Amino acid sequence: MLLDAAREAAAEAVGCRADELVFTSSGSRAVHTGVAGALAGRRRAGRHLIVSAVEHSSVLHSAEAHEAGGGSVTQVPVDRGGAVDPVAYGAALREDTALACLQSANHEVGTEQPVGAVAEVCREAGVPLLVDAAQSLGWGPVEDGWSLLTASAHKWGGPSGVGLLVVRKGVRFAAQGPVDERESGRAPGFENIPAIVAAAASLRAVRAEAAGEAVRLRELTDRIRARVPRLVSDVEVVGDPVRRLPGVVTFSCLYVDGEALLHELDREGFSVSSGSSCTSSTLTPSHVLRAMGVLSEGNVRVSLPLGAAEEDVERFLEVLPRAVAAVREKLGAPVSETVVREDVLVVDSLGKRCPIPVIELAKVIGDVPVGGLVRVLSDDEAARLDIPAWCEMRNQEYVGEEPAERGTAYLVRRVS
Amino acid sequence: MLLDAAREAAAEAVGCRADELVFTSSGSRAVHTGVAGALAGRRRAGRHLIVSAVEHSSVLHSAEAHEAGGGSVTQVPVDRGGAVDPVAYGAALREDTALACLQSANHEVGTEQPVGAVAEVCREAGVPLLVDAAQSLGWGPVEDGWSLLTASAHKWGGPSGVGLLVVRKGVRFAAQGPVDERESGRAPGFENIPAIVAAAASLRAVRAEAAGEAVRLRELTDRIRARVPRLVSDVEVVGDPVRRLPGVVTFSCLYVDGEALLHELDREGFSVSSGSSCTSSTLTPSHVLRAMGVLSEGNVRVSLPLGAAEEDVERFLEVLPRAVAAVREKLGAPVSETVVREDVLVVDSLGKRCPIPVIELAKVIGDVPVGGLVRVLSDDEAARLDIPAWCEMRNQEYVGEEPAERGTAYLVRRVS
Repeated sequence: MLLDAAREAAAEAVGCRADELVFTSSGSRAVHTGVAGALAGRRRAGRHLIVSAVEHSSVLHSAEAHEAGGGSVTQVPVDRGGAVDPVAYGAALREDTALACLQSANHEVGTEQPVGAVAEVCREAGVPLLVDAAQSLGWGPVEDGWSLLTASAHKWGGPSGVGLLVVRKGVRFAAQGPVDERESGRAPGFENIPAIVAAAASLRAVRAEAAGEAVRLRELTDRIRARVPRLVSDVEVVGDPVRRLPGVVTFSCLYVDGEALLHELDREGFSVSSGSSCTSSTLTPSHVLRAMGVLSEGNVRVSLPLGAAEEDVERFLEVLPRAVAAVREKLGAPVSETVVREDVLVVDSLGKRCPIPVIELAKVIGDVPVGGLVRVLSDDEAARLDIPAWCEMRNQEYVGEEPAERGTAYLVRRVS
Repeated sequence: MLLDAAREAAAEAVGCRADELVFTSSGSRAVHTGVAGALAGRRRAGRHLIVSAVEHSSVLHSAEAHEAGGGSVTQVPVDRGGAVDPVAYGAALREDTALACLQSANHEVGTEQPVGAVAEVCREAGVPLLVDAAQSLGWGPVEDGWSLLTASAHKWGGPSGVGLLVVRKGVRFAAQGPVDERESGRAPGFENIPAIVAAAASLRAVRAEAAGEAVRLRELTDRIRARVPRLVSDVEVVGDPVRRLPGVVTFSCLYVDGEALLHELDREGFSVSSGSSCTSSTLTPSHVLRAMGVLSEGNVRVSLPLGAAEEDVERFLEVLPRAVAAVREKLGAPVSETVVREDVLVVDSLGKRCPIPVIELAKVIGDVPVGGLVRVLSDDEAARLDIPAWCEMRNQEYVGEEPAERGTAYLVRRVS
C-alpha cells in the first residue's frame, strides 16, 4: 500500500500513469536500465543511439556500453550556452536510430534543453526520446512528448538510493539482464520502501514550494551572474542566461587553479563544485565545459539549495573576490622559460598544469608585436580548451594547434 | 571517509580485504552483478554455470538470463533436508564450467550448505565459487574457500538498499553493462552513504551479539521443531535438524490452506511466511520445497528476529494448534465426486487447489482394499509435490503420474 501510494504521488508529479513508473535504486540505474531496455526493445529498427554532448555521465556510460556491444552513437553538439539546436538534433536522426536521449537541463551549467522541440522532431521520425530529468523534476514536469523519463530523488532533496524510470505505454521496451517480479520486471531486488516513500513525499513537498522558490532562487543566481564579473576580473559566466535552472550558476576565473579556489571557499564555509581539470581525479576538464567551448580553468559551480538565504549569497559575493585574489597571488609569477625564435615567442609549459599555461600565455602576449605569434607548448589536456577560450575572452586570434616534439603547440596571434 | 570506514568494517566481518568489497544497491543486485561479471571474466573457460536447486531467486534469475544468452546451466539437486551433496556438486563440474554458485544457508528452510567442502572440489577443478551469504552473514563469516560472496544488509537487520559484493583478488571479473568510477567500477550510481554506514554499523552490532543470540534462538527454534509435531497432527517439520540457521524453522501441515493459516496467525499477531502454492501470486509451490521433495501444503516459515522473546514463542505454540484446527474445520468435508472404476477409485479434484486434492485422497484411501489404487485427477501444480509427500508421511505407495484427459492423474496404492 505504501509503495502504491508512493507510485501514485510520483506519477502525478511526473505527469504519467502510475503503471508507467517504476522505482530504481538510483538515477544512474534508471538511466542504465532505461537506455538498455529501450535499445533492446527497438533492436529491429537498428542500433543507432543519439545523445547530446553534455549528458550526465550515466547516459554517456550507457552509450559507451552500447558502442562496446557493437552499436553506433551520435553525439549532438551544443552551442556556447550549452543547449542543443533542435534542427541539428533532428539531423542526427537516421533510419536505424533506435533511441534518442536528451537531458531536461544540464547538471553543471543549468542550461535547459529544448525538450519539447526535440521530442517533436523525434516523434516525426518515430524515434522514442528518453529524457534524463534528474536536474529539473523537482521544479516541474518535463515538456510533453517524451517516451521515457528518468530522475533521481536525491537531486530534488529526497533520499539517496531512489531513482525513477518511466516508460510510456506503447513504447517498446525489453528489460535486460536478470529481472524478478518486482517493479514490473524493470528493477529487481528488495524494494527500499522507506526511501521510496520519503522520495515521493519529498517530491510532493518540493513541488508545493517550487513556483515561489524558483522566483526567489532565480533572483539570487541572477545577482551572482551579474555581480561576479564586476567583482572579479577575467571571469566568464557560463550557461544560458535565461533558459536555465533557478538554483545553479557557474563561472570560470582565468589564471586560477580550481582546486585551490575550492579550498579557499571551503575555508570560508562555502561548498562549491568545479569542472576544472585540476579538481578532477582524471585531470581532464568537464566534458560539459569542453562541449560548450568555454573556459574550464578556475571553474566554480554554485548550487543554491531550496531555502538558501540571501545573506549567504551576499557573504559569498563578499568572500569570492578575496579568495580568487589569494589564489592568483599564490600562482602570481610562475617561472617559465620563454625563448624568442624568429618572430615567434615560445612558451614552454610542458609538465605544467592548468591554469599555468594560460597564465604564461597572458604574461608574454604583450611581449610580441601586434601580428606576432606566441607558441605555447603544453601537455595538459585542459590547454586545448582553455587557450582558445582565453583568446575569445581577450580578443586575440587563436590560430590552431599542432603536434610538438613533446605535447602540443598552441599558436596564438596578438591582434590587439 | 565514512564510505572507507564502512568498507573496512564490512570487510572485517566478511573476512576479506577492503578493496575486495563493494557496496551495491541490494543483495539481488550484488548477485546479478557478481554472477554476470564472473561469467564474463571466465568467458574463455566456457559458458557453463552450476547452481543448487534451492538458491535464492536472484541466483536462479541470473541463471535464466545466462541461459537466455546462450549459456548452459546445471542445477544440483538437494536431499530431503535441503542440502547439496559435495560429491554430487563436484560431479556437475565440467571442463567448460565458468562459475559455480552455492548459498551459505537456505532462505526458506534454514538448512546450511556444505560450503567448505564444495569450495574445495571447485578449487580442485579451478572453478570459482560464488557464495550467496545473505542468510548467514549476520551470524558469522562463511567457511573458507569461496571466490565471490554476496550479501544483503536488510537480512542481518540493517537498512534496505544495501548489498555487498566481494570479489577475491585474482578472481577474473569483468563487470557488465554501463559502469562509472564508483565502487571499483562494479556498482554505478550515487552511493547511498547513510544507508551504507548504517549497514556496516548494524553488521558490526549484530555480530557482537551473534554467538550468544545464536544459542538462545536455536533453543527456541528447537522447541518449535520438537513441539509442533506433538501439538498438531499431520505435520512435517522440514530442513536439516542440526546444520541450520539459528532463527528459522519451517513446517508443513497436511490438509491446510497456507493462505488461510497465515491469516489465522496474523489475526493473533504473528507474521509468518509460507511456501505453499496457495499463498504465492504464481500459484506454484516454493521451488525450495519442491526441490527437497517435502510437503508444501499448509507450509509455514517462522523467522525469529534477534531478541525474539521466549513468551512470544510460547504463545505461538499455544495459538498454532487452534489456528490449524480452524482452517482444517473450514475445509472439513469437501464435496468431491468419487467414482469406483474396476479396482481403481477415481477422485476428481480438477479445478480444486491445494490442499483439497490431498484432503480428498486422504478421505478415500480407506475405501479401497489394501493393494487397491486411488487415481487422483488434478490440475493443481502443487499436487505433483504434495501427493508423493503425503504418501511418504502416510506410508502409502506413490505409483506415479500420467497425463489425463484434463490435468494429471496421480496413482496411489494403499499398502497399509
